[in-house]
Amino acid sequence: MPEASGLPEWTQGVLQQVEDALDLALPSVTEAPQRLHEAMRYAVLQGGKRVRPLLAFAAGEITGAPADRLCAAAVAVELIHAYSLVHDDLPCMDDDVLRRGKPTVHVAFDEATALLVGDALQSLAFEVLTQSMAGENALAQVRLLAEASGSRGMAGGQAIDLASVGRMLTREQLEQMHRAKTGALLRAAVLLGAMSGSSMSETDQASLETYARAIGLAFQVVDDILDVETDTAQLGKTAGKDAQQNKPTYVSLLGLDASKQLAETLRLEALEAVAAFGERALRLTQLADLIVLRKH
Amino acid sequence: MPEASGLPEWTQGVLQQVEDALDLALPSVTEAPQRLHEAMRYAVLQGGKRVRPLLAFAAGEITGAPADRLCAAAVAVELIHAYSLVHDDLPCMDDDVLRRGKPTVHVAFDEATALLVGDALQSLAFEVLTQSMAGENALAQVRLLAEASGSRGMAGGQAIDLASVGRMLTREQLEQMHRAKTGALLRAAVLLGAMSGSSMSETDQASLETYARAIGLAFQVVDDILDVETDTAQLGKTAGKDAQQNKPTYVSLLGLDASKQLAETLRLEALEAVAAFGERALRLTQLADLIVLRKH
Repeated sequence: MPEASGLPEWTQGVLQQVEDALDLALPSVTEAPQRLHEAMRYAVLQGGKRVRPLLAFAAGEITGAPADRLCAAAVAVELIHAYSLVHDDLPCMDDDVLRRGKPTVHVAFDEATALLVGDALQSLAFEVLTQSMAGENALAQVRLLAEASGSRGMAGGQAIDLASVGRMLTREQLEQMHRAKTGALLRAAVLLGAMSGSSMSETDQASLETYARAIGLAFQVVDDILDVETDTAQLGKTAGKDAQQNKPTYVSLLGLDASKQLAETLRLEALEAVAAFGERALRLTQLADLIVLRKH
Repeated sequence: MPEASGLPEWTQGVLQQVEDALDLALPSVTEAPQRLHEAMRYAVLQGGKRVRPLLAFAAGEITGAPADRLCAAAVAVELIHAYSLVHDDLPCMDDDVLRRGKPTVHVAFDEATALLVGDALQSLAFEVLTQSMAGENALAQVRLLAEASGSRGMAGGQAIDLASVGRMLTREQLEQMHRAKTGALLRAAVLLGAMSGSSMSETDQASLETYARAIGLAFQVVDDILDVETDTAQLGKTAGKDAQQNKPTYVSLLGLDASKQLAETLRLEALEAVAAFGERALRLTQLADLIVLRKH
């Protein structure tokens, strides 16, 4: 009974399944091209908070989704996330050398390999989604993930982010950027998880959308707060980078106190959105708390 | 009656449909993020031989596939091809400044934008595939395209290519590289086209595989020949690049005459593979001729 266990036990169980599924989905290092496969595994395995897989599994409790389908959804969305990190870290983008406490892929391997790692991980994400379910539902999942990843979603958000360096954004513009850059994929994680089970009413789907939107923004607000409040070692990536690169953040726009207040407001919004699901929303509720109250 | 028209008329008709479909699939430049969308359109529209869309349409004649489904398959495969060119031209890969007679995307825009253009075009390819057909068949198309694009296909071939610079490859190794780098996507074009119509027998599918494999290799052999025989203006991309970069090619391995002989042998293999389809294979046959006898 998942309802009976605490969040740490539930999280550990999910993460174990997801790590195993990621390991299985990624080509072996003994398979050619070996260096590329080694780099793909380096980019994905042993690291990361796996927020998106956890959200997929938590949303799956709303629709009683079976574990194997949730694994496929969780792996697909995590592969997209991992590819985006590899590309974002490249010298022509954020030019970062540290990620999840390890050298970034282009540092550990080389730039060309990092480029191909990202490209191949994206392909693999869609491949994985076609292996879990049949017919219409799986096709709807592919469509959702493709939309969330593309120029109207994550990649588009990254483009807006690049264009915003050194510029002052309004709060609305900042929100729009984050809704695309990180929000779209977090939303996809929640919806892909829920879609892995029985079909939902439109009201239920709307509630999940509201939840996903609130925690998506909260996640970013907290990221901005941590970027100024935490040191590099604890964060596992270079701290203070946003200010250094003159990037607009919630902290630079609203100040630290108002940013913390906003994160709390968004947490409460997320909880309210899923309150009607009762006990089925236990994990979604706990994850909203975790996302806002995390320290790295 | 497509059988009644000559190849130029048929090609022109297909290309017009494909250009329209590509234009429709790509986000408008008026939609945010505008610069990214402008660069995506720059990378895809007004240029390219559209070999893969033509192959998809030609293979569609074998299974009587309707034009709208063929358009989706053709657009998806061309978007993957276009993304791979944008990423291959980046400084950390082939570092090329000219493509299809125009400055490459990172030259006309910037490196970060070119990276995101490729990423977003890949997502869009999968999105487009989910819009044309229902259920199982579309899902099989997504799987095929994902496999052809990933580390066991195109991206993997590119990795092998990078690793082979300055090394002597055996003919077998060279063939293996090209089978992944360009062959996988050309094969996908043929199969996606055929899958857009009525279902095929295993024998028919095997014939198409043999055809696709032969013209895939022939395409690369001819590319290698043209790289040494044609000047930059005629080629629309930098000529003599392979020798300059000390990349193994069919010409460097077999010599010019033997390479030309090999291309002809492969052309005949392709023709023989689809001979049993009779008149339905007219366009596949003509395209095999076109691919081997082209001058750029």
